[in-house]
Amino acid sequence: MFIKNCWYVVGWSGEVPQDGFLARTVINVPLALWRDSRGELHALTDRCCHRGAPLSMGRLEGNCVRCAYHGLKFDASGRCVEIPSQARVPANFKVASYPVIERHKWLWVWMGDPALADPALISDTHYVDDPAWASGGGHLHYDVNYLLVCDNLLDFTHLPFLHPTTLGGSADYAAVLPTVERIDRGVRVSKWVFDTDPPEYSKSYGAYAGKRVDRWMIYDFILPGILLMDSGMVPAGTGATARETGLRIDGLEFRGRQALTPETDKSTHYFFAHPHNFMIDQPEVTKRITDNLVIAFEEDRAIITAQQKNLDLDPSFKMLPMAADLALTQFRRVVQAALEQEILQVENLPSA
Amino acid sequence: MFIKNCWYVVGWSGEVPQDGFLARTVINVPLALWRDSRGELHALTDRCCHRGAPLSMGRLEGNCVRCAYHGLKFDASGRCVEIPSQARVPANFKVASYPVIERHKWLWVWMGDPALADPALISDTHYVDDPAWASGGGHLHYDVNYLLVCDNLLDFTHLPFLHPTTLGGSADYAAVLPTVERIDRGVRVSKWVFDTDPPEYSKSYGAYAGKRVDRWMIYDFILPGILLMDSGMVPAGTGATARETGLRIDGLEFRGRQALTPETDKSTHYFFAHPHNFMIDQPEVTKRITDNLVIAFEEDRAIITAQQKNLDLDPSFKMLPMAADLALTQFRRVVQAALEQEILQVENLPSA
Amino acid sequence: MFIKNCWYVVGWSGEVPQDGFLARTVINVPLALWRDSRGELHALTDRCCHRGAPLSMGRLEGNCVRCAYHGLKFDASGRCVEIPSQARVPANFKVASYPVIERHKWLWVWMGDPALADPALISDTHYVDDPAWASGGGHLHYDVNYLLVCDNLLDFTHLPFLHPTTLGGSADYAAVLPTVERIDRGVRVSKWVFDTDPPEYSKSYGAYAGKRVDRWMIYDFILPGILLMDSGMVPAGTGATARETGLRIDGLEFRGRQALTPETDKSTHYFFAHPHNFMIDQPEVTKRITDNLVIAFEEDRAIITAQQKNLDLDPSFKMLPMAADLALTQFRRVVQAALEQEILQVENLPSA
Repeated sequence: MFIKNCWYVVGWSGEVPQDGFLARTVINVPLALWRDSRGELHALTDRCCHRGAPLSMGRLEGNCVRCAYHGLKFDASGRCVEIPSQARVPANFKVASYPVIERHKWLWVWMGDPALADPALISDTHYVDDPAWASGGGHLHYDVNYLLVCDNLLDFTHLPFLHPTTLGGSADYAAVLPTVERIDRGVRVSKWVFDTDPPEYSKSYGAYAGKRVDRWMIYDFILPGILLMDSGMVPAGTGATARETGLRIDGLEFRGRQALTPETDKSTHYFFAHPHNFMIDQPEVTKRITDNLVIAFEEDRAIITAQQKNLDLDPSFKMLPMAADLALTQFRRVVQAALEQEILQVENLPSA
Repeated sequence: MFIKNCWYVVGWSGEVPQDGFLARTVINVPLALWRDSRGELHALTDRCCHRGAPLSMGRLEGNCVRCAYHGLKFDASGRCVEIPSQARVPANFKVASYPVIERHKWLWVWMGDPALADPALISDTHYVDDPAWASGGGHLHYDVNYLLVCDNLLDFTHLPFLHPTTLGGSADYAAVLPTVERIDRGVRVSKWVFDTDPPEYSKSYGAYAGKRVDRWMIYDFILPGILLMDSGMVPAGTGATARETGLRIDGLEFRGRQALTPETDKSTHYFFAHPHNFMIDQPEVTKRITDNLVIAFEEDRAIITAQQKNLDLDPSFKMLPMAADLALTQFRRVVQAALEQEILQVENLPSA
Repeated sequence: MFIKNCWYVVGWSGEVPQDGFLARTVINVPLALWRDSRGELHALTDRCCHRGAPLSMGRLEGNCVRCAYHGLKFDASGRCVEIPSQARVPANFKVASYPVIERHKWLWVWMGDPALADPALISDTHYVDDPAWASGGGHLHYDVNYLLVCDNLLDFTHLPFLHPTTLGGSADYAAVLPTVERIDRGVRVSKWVFDTDPPEYSKSYGAYAGKRVDRWMIYDFILPGILLMDSGMVPAGTGATARETGLRIDGLEFRGRQALTPETDKSTHYFFAHPHNFMIDQPEVTKRITDNLVIAFEEDRAIITAQQKNLDLDPSFKMLPMAADLALTQFRRVVQAALEQEILQVENLPSA
């Protein structure tokens, strides 16, 4: 069971072809995304109401979609406007349409009640196409339940162990547990470590090689599975001021944006961007940052996929909580509460 | 659940090797087909009664079959006639045998009560090896429930949309719905369209390029999933007489013969032949007709396979009926009635 | 359901790498096998108690195992001795450890109550590394329930049919059914055939080509699925004495050792060695013996895999017993009794 009333990232803008469809399944619902003649984006259930064929195998006709099987034509609202083999179109011939919004290269779709689809609930990812930042990004696919990937991003004590040569920091950095706060629809995880070695991946960017740094990682992780991270490092000794004032002069800074979107109960889309504020006019630096991130993500994927197999092998296995699980435990409660809230709404009962 | 008391096409004659077996599963029953020393065809359950090994992995010994595992020998009736490791063969050592008939290159097997296996119930496919006709053919395999393929063949309003460059006709041809009649064990679908453009595929056969034609398509679709089609075109203006008299002078005619045989609940064998009455001494024409048909069939398979995936993703999805579904709706009722009839027979209750 | 209180062969000694793990699943339990700094072997559940990641993806640290995900460290007893992100390790942080013993190149693991893990219950496989014998061996993997492979090894009337060109003997040899006795935790199968042709595979070893032999095959098949075979041939006429005295002068002798270990309900590990007492200083002979055995094993695997598919296709199919099934029927009873015995133990009821 998945939360419906929230914005899911369903793809990158560039994934919707000029004259065709992006077919992607979100929370077990097949979606067909396409642009009308004005370039406006639409999302329909990718399943013709007649016999269930995917609309994404059909074609665009102006601002409508023509099913490839028996030629039924649907407008952007999902209403069937033509059945070639009969004069009248019954009123129940329609497919669901979903609010979809394009922001900073990402496509966000609302899978629940359209009346509740408030664009203000879409997370701030403007760094992804902000000219003051440079960013690569991508899309991974995991054959696991999405909560296992959320868990991964909510407990970074795994960095020195799973990513020793990529993201993993020094032992003293790893040893500091972050503070965790409940925020609206999620949790905030914050950590400052002063006077530590810079992480392995940053050494190639010159400025900090052989020096000590003050380092921070502050992120919100909010429903359905959106990571908004502010991280970086400043010369050792300047961190305290930076923390107080928000000014991080001469800092290597990142604004990681990641989105986990359940595809099915056992598969997950993973969208990510990793804006940085330094050497932004050197595409090879941006590429290197992204490539290294993908190496680390593949380390994550390997162990999480193996973890899922272990869980499948013995469904009676119970995970044991430890202190570092605080954020993920909190987030799972947020998810659970949202699910229960939606069940209450569906049942038209007053929500507690 | 599948109908048992009917003839299923299980293969092409040439698929049974000289000294071996054709192993093929029909309605979830594994079958071993083989020829005895007189060339007579036999079909046994492809599962030794001892431990369940496939008999088709064994060998022929005269008019018997020797299991490759422990050497049990079965005669053509399925009776075990030798257990190498013991003197006596218990009476319950046997496998089921199935009536099987070879007609016009196709092998028909009766999966139900042998006493009811009336050869007169086998459909007329004589065009497949009639010297006045030429025919190619083949065997496809679908990973879908066979009813989805039946549906496809019972509503040809899909032709202009799914097969625009192969089978699809002109818009006016597509717009005419056929008449649908219930016949014994099936439905008859009939359609004449006068003064229309010839279909794309026929243009390369010369006679009709640049001309108008009268075109027809009349087929019976009968249990378990047999298509017997009479289709073609005559010069525009001659169709009315042809329809009345049955004489189709100078017509391009086809006698499509297709058989859908459920393999399992989610997979289907598709046997087809496409006899034509023109240029029958030009094998390259016959080959081209068949090749083009296979291109169209692959278009069918792609969308029906995607349709099956959509149905699997959301079993609660209900198809919506439209006018063009008349024949397939009728045929599904015929199937349902036959299944209920068999259940009544099994329960020894008087059939309503 | 599988027997737990018994020794399963989990691998060959050489499969545990110097600085890493052998990951192998036994009776649905993932195991991580490794050697500590003294070379001593250990087996732990290959699933971190924290989030379920496989320990075998981690690393060895002295005599401990470090999980690759969040760095939890476990000692050889399975006790968690360090959680990097917190000071205290709760007492319930542990994974199961299993008694594991290395004998004659095989690794034996006890999956049940460690208190019952009596090394005396490990079968005698000393021929595998006895200098008076030469032996090849290997490890196959079957996608079938392990009992189907046990069945195969408990009824050798399949030899002349399934292995006519490899292991299969002459018709008179095949026709003789062995005697079957119940022994402790298993069955003993014995057969002597006098004055017969040597089997096909033995002819290339010179001594017996063109001669007659007295031939025997005597084996114990004991829980969980261990084959201990004494087989061979002596010149015709000397067999009776050899049987009485145990002296088999000038015999071609084998001491086949095979172990079937369930991986999951539908998959099986098959470990085998085939010590022989002749030409032991000619590695190419040993290699040829092993290679030929593997050819025969692949014949077994092909038909048993097909058998499993047939059983899956129709779970209502019931096997029919015949005289040659005596040993396998007895062994299945031994398995069933052991399972029932363990259930009684778990329920703390007095065992009948």
